[in-house]
Amino acid sequence: MNKYKVRFVPLGGIVGVTKNMYLYELYKKMDSNFFNKSKKGNNLDGYSLQDILIVDCGIGFPKEKDLGVDFVIPDVSYLEDKIDKIRAILFTHGHEDHIGALPYVYDTLGNPPVFASKLTAMFLENKFKQEAKRNIFIEIVNFEKEYSFGDFKVRFIRVTHSIPDTTHIFIKTPIGNFYHGSDFKLDLTPPYGPAPDFYQITKAGKEGVMCLLSDCLGSERPGLTLSESVVGETFENEMRKTKGKFIMTTFSSNISRIRQCVEAAIKFNRKVVFLGRSMKESTKLASEIGYLPIPDSLFANEEDLVRLPPNKVCLIVAGSQAQYGSALTKLADKQNPYVKIMPGDKVIFSSDPIPGNENEVYELIEDLVSQGADVFYSDIADQLHSSGHGNQEDLKFLIRFTNPKFFIPIGGTIRHQKQYEVLVDDLGYDKKKVFSLSEGETVWFDGVEARLGEKIETKNIYIDAYGVGDVGNIVLRDRKTISTDGIVFAILIVDKNAMLLTRPKIFSRGFVYEKDEKELYEGAIRLIEKITKPRERKVIDFGKLKRDIINNLEDYFFKIKGRRPMVVVEVISL
Amino acid sequence: MNKYKVRFVPLGGIVGVTKNMYLYELYKKMDSNFFNKSKKGNNLDGYSLQDILIVDCGIGFPKEKDLGVDFVIPDVSYLEDKIDKIRAILFTHGHEDHIGALPYVYDTLGNPPVFASKLTAMFLENKFKQEAKRNIFIEIVNFEKEYSFGDFKVRFIRVTHSIPDTTHIFIKTPIGNFYHGSDFKLDLTPPYGPAPDFYQITKAGKEGVMCLLSDCLGSERPGLTLSESVVGETFENEMRKTKGKFIMTTFSSNISRIRQCVEAAIKFNRKVVFLGRSMKESTKLASEIGYLPIPDSLFANEEDLVRLPPNKVCLIVAGSQAQYGSALTKLADKQNPYVKIMPGDKVIFSSDPIPGNENEVYELIEDLVSQGADVFYSDIADQLHSSGHGNQEDLKFLIRFTNPKFFIPIGGTIRHQKQYEVLVDDLGYDKKKVFSLSEGETVWFDGVEARLGEKIETKNIYIDAYGVGDVGNIVLRDRKTISTDGIVFAILIVDKNAMLLTRPKIFSRGFVYEKDEKELYEGAIRLIEKITKPRERKVIDFGKLKRDIINNLEDYFFKIKGRRPMVVVEVISL
Repeated sequence: MNKYKVRFVPLGGIVGVTKNMYLYELYKKMDSNFFNKSKKGNNLDGYSLQDILIVDCGIGFPKEKDLGVDFVIPDVSYLEDKIDKIRAILFTHGHEDHIGALPYVYDTLGNPPVFASKLTAMFLENKFKQEAKRNIFIEIVNFEKEYSFGDFKVRFIRVTHSIPDTTHIFIKTPIGNFYHGSDFKLDLTPPYGPAPDFYQITKAGKEGVMCLLSDCLGSERPGLTLSESVVGETFENEMRKTKGKFIMTTFSSNISRIRQCVEAAIKFNRKVVFLGRSMKESTKLASEIGYLPIPDSLFANEEDLVRLPPNKVCLIVAGSQAQYGSALTKLADKQNPYVKIMPGDKVIFSSDPIPGNENEVYELIEDLVSQGADVFYSDIADQLHSSGHGNQEDLKFLIRFTNPKFFIPIGGTIRHQKQYEVLVDDLGYDKKKVFSLSEGETVWFDGVEARLGEKIETKNIYIDAYGVGDVGNIVLRDRKTISTDGIVFAILIVDKNAMLLTRPKIFSRGFVYEKDEKELYEGAIRLIEKITKPRERKVIDFGKLKRDIINNLEDYFFKIKGRRPMVVVEVISL
Repeated sequence: MNKYKVRFVPLGGIVGVTKNMYLYELYKKMDSNFFNKSKKGNNLDGYSLQDILIVDCGIGFPKEKDLGVDFVIPDVSYLEDKIDKIRAILFTHGHEDHIGALPYVYDTLGNPPVFASKLTAMFLENKFKQEAKRNIFIEIVNFEKEYSFGDFKVRFIRVTHSIPDTTHIFIKTPIGNFYHGSDFKLDLTPPYGPAPDFYQITKAGKEGVMCLLSDCLGSERPGLTLSESVVGETFENEMRKTKGKFIMTTFSSNISRIRQCVEAAIKFNRKVVFLGRSMKESTKLASEIGYLPIPDSLFANEEDLVRLPPNKVCLIVAGSQAQYGSALTKLADKQNPYVKIMPGDKVIFSSDPIPGNENEVYELIEDLVSQGADVFYSDIADQLHSSGHGNQEDLKFLIRFTNPKFFIPIGGTIRHQKQYEVLVDDLGYDKKKVFSLSEGETVWFDGVEARLGEKIETKNIYIDAYGVGDVGNIVLRDRKTISTDGIVFAILIVDKNAMLLTRPKIFSRGFVYEKDEKELYEGAIRLIEKITKPRERKVIDFGKLKRDIINNLEDYFFKIKGRRPMVVVEVISL
């Protein structure tokens, strides 16, 4: 019997693609004197929890809702009595679904050391400033170094994805090693930064991989994923032919994509203008660390658009998913005061609609076309977008490189997990060695075998959207989809000490008919007031406040109505 | 100035795909006492030749001629005064164009030590028995071992290709390392044997690769090469639907392909019958080392075909290139006494026509169809054949894995070399670091730079075909193609001591009109008699005898007629 055991606990990111947060727990066999003294808490079967390593802490986009508008965070309540065991939080890359939740849970986790690569750290720091109104220290990872976190040893490995500075993490434990292969594709020609560090990946394989955690989102798509750099060529070719404005839209975190568009603009001497809050922010951050160099002479502000000739303009615009209120939607709705769509303009959608968003995206495209723009999107033109996630061959390469004993597909839905099992089988491994987990389902490793462990109870913690203006739209759309339990919104307007400046406002859709349920809502408002009042802490954790309200409201509604509406809380601090 | 220099000398295999033979020459700076004492021979610019390593020694299929019928061997005359420097001959894999010439030149090279992987060694030993009528000792390579050959250090690395036991060779020299990446594809699911040893490949890259020699034959084809194992699935699916005989044709060296067909036959309980000399031979060899296991109960001989029901038969047949006199051609021409094509039979061409062979292959297909067979070939059906050579992505992976300073594309034509340069450029390397060589063009490496060296004069040494019966056919076809200088055949019938049993017979096509040139031919015959007579050695090197005759005849015809016909010599030993 081994002295150690390891338990893998996905607090999120397993099914539903987003909200990534994973725990590696190292347990040590207890001295026989203590054996079985305590069965509860952190002691299990004679093993005692020694070290916890956390990988990623991202927000999630609930499937049934508008992606990119409202979101959820991982439920960290499981960790609340274990924060003294948390040795570090490691981040793989800077996408929202891997970093976005940290400001909401960092205090709850006891502020452990945080490690991330450069751009990831930059995005995290910015997020903290915005969401938690404070600074955070993040250690930039050294790819040459082997870190020790308790009895974990960790190496970061450079890989490629749709955002620079993406890493995999090789986690060594006393009983075997994990290869944490989250979001990646094997891009042999990344437009910026190095190709994946194949030597380090295969070296991990040579040292021995007990379990491979692998991105599985591309497991249905044959072949290798297209290199990010093919998109750059498309930009150049299309820009060359464009007589009016060149307008490109993609995810604002896709710095490589944006940089390729900027480089084409430089080539054709077009001024670069960023539209949309998220786009302006992420490009500013990337510029600051040199990842997005733009000559001053070619940078222009939104207001400058009134005087710039169309053929001297390259707009890079947020809102590729046709999010309500986004810069592109406003442009299509003729709501941008500085610029209009005109014949001769070319709009390039350099991202595919996220499943569920297709209708909105196609409506947006029709709006743009009706105003005379040439619109290119992947249904009609190749090579406008390249997924950041590896297709089947990328995934198979990673398996061959690491040659693991066990597999855990992460970052995909059940459908992707099943297809990943097929790939594993194709490569001659035993499908039974694949653990296709759902959220909270754990796996125990004892150095020889692996088996499903206890399920950790988690729930979705819903967080409000980026801007209050979007709320009406959310409700409207949710009415169609949240058909079983409905949704309840609570708006709080507070001062800096989290004192309510006015009574909370509650409204709902698809839950109960509000006019008939005045008492129910009055009770909910009083509940919020009760929760909000007794706060006297100096640093207000708005995240925790919101979660408290959400938990209490959920219980309250369930007690009275027997239904669990989705509860969304927006705290507006004046 | 470095103490050492290395010169890479391709004696073949650079342009024209086949006839692979490469030299790595290590030169050491001479003591100043000896400096410039000798400018000739093995001393160059104050450097003296110390060690030679030879990689591969294959036959070639001259483009203008029938592939697989007549062939050429590398011209090793450059090495004749350097055999004391040859430390070893290393083989990468068992294809004819990499091993086939050894029996013809081994004596001339001074019988140096030979290293090869298992199947390659098997094929080489067999070749020696057949062609040189003697045994040869071949050391089976150990993939864990680093070999020393003079001041060269060498590791063999497992890769995948269309024949098992294919290797790459990592060659370390005092001034930098070469990665000899001959014929390969990155097959993640090879039907037999391991996937490429990615760790060893990337480790070579980590140790530093001064120059990558890379297969470039697939440099025009996008994507990754299809895995060999997809063809196995096709065999199964097609066999399931076949009511009559299942007939598969491919290259007889493609043991993996053949094994997959055999496995399908086992599954559907069909007796396996091999047709054609080369097919019978290579499958026998592969069976002997366990690479092609066939249960006795499912193996049948050609003669058994008369009594086997068609739906119990799986024929694996040589002649996929429609070679004249091959087993498949005979079958289509109703010349096989034991078996006939009938309606319900299915013929699968699991190989693409080699460029230049298309007409013959299509004629053969029509013959088969007209007799009622269903014929599947890659124009009409996918996944019947997978190239053994890496496509663009395979080639790019190898570049990323090894990250070389210089590049030499090998095993392709000029067109493939140029396309390989494009790939190198795509990956952000300087195209000028690519040396696209033609045969005999050398490259000097001094540890810092690389530059084109002196050109070694080589010529094609033509060897007769596999069987004398084919000769008439060769001539017939060559009349169309050898239009400038024609071709001359010399047939010698000798005893075991190489004594002529009758006067040599000479005939030609496209050279001069024989009836008007009786004297010319009489002179040639006398010349052959002269060369053949004074042999008194115990061991007769027929290869050398043929080359002597070829060289002398070429000179003779040129002196008298001012033209250099291709000279083909067939020695029949009774």
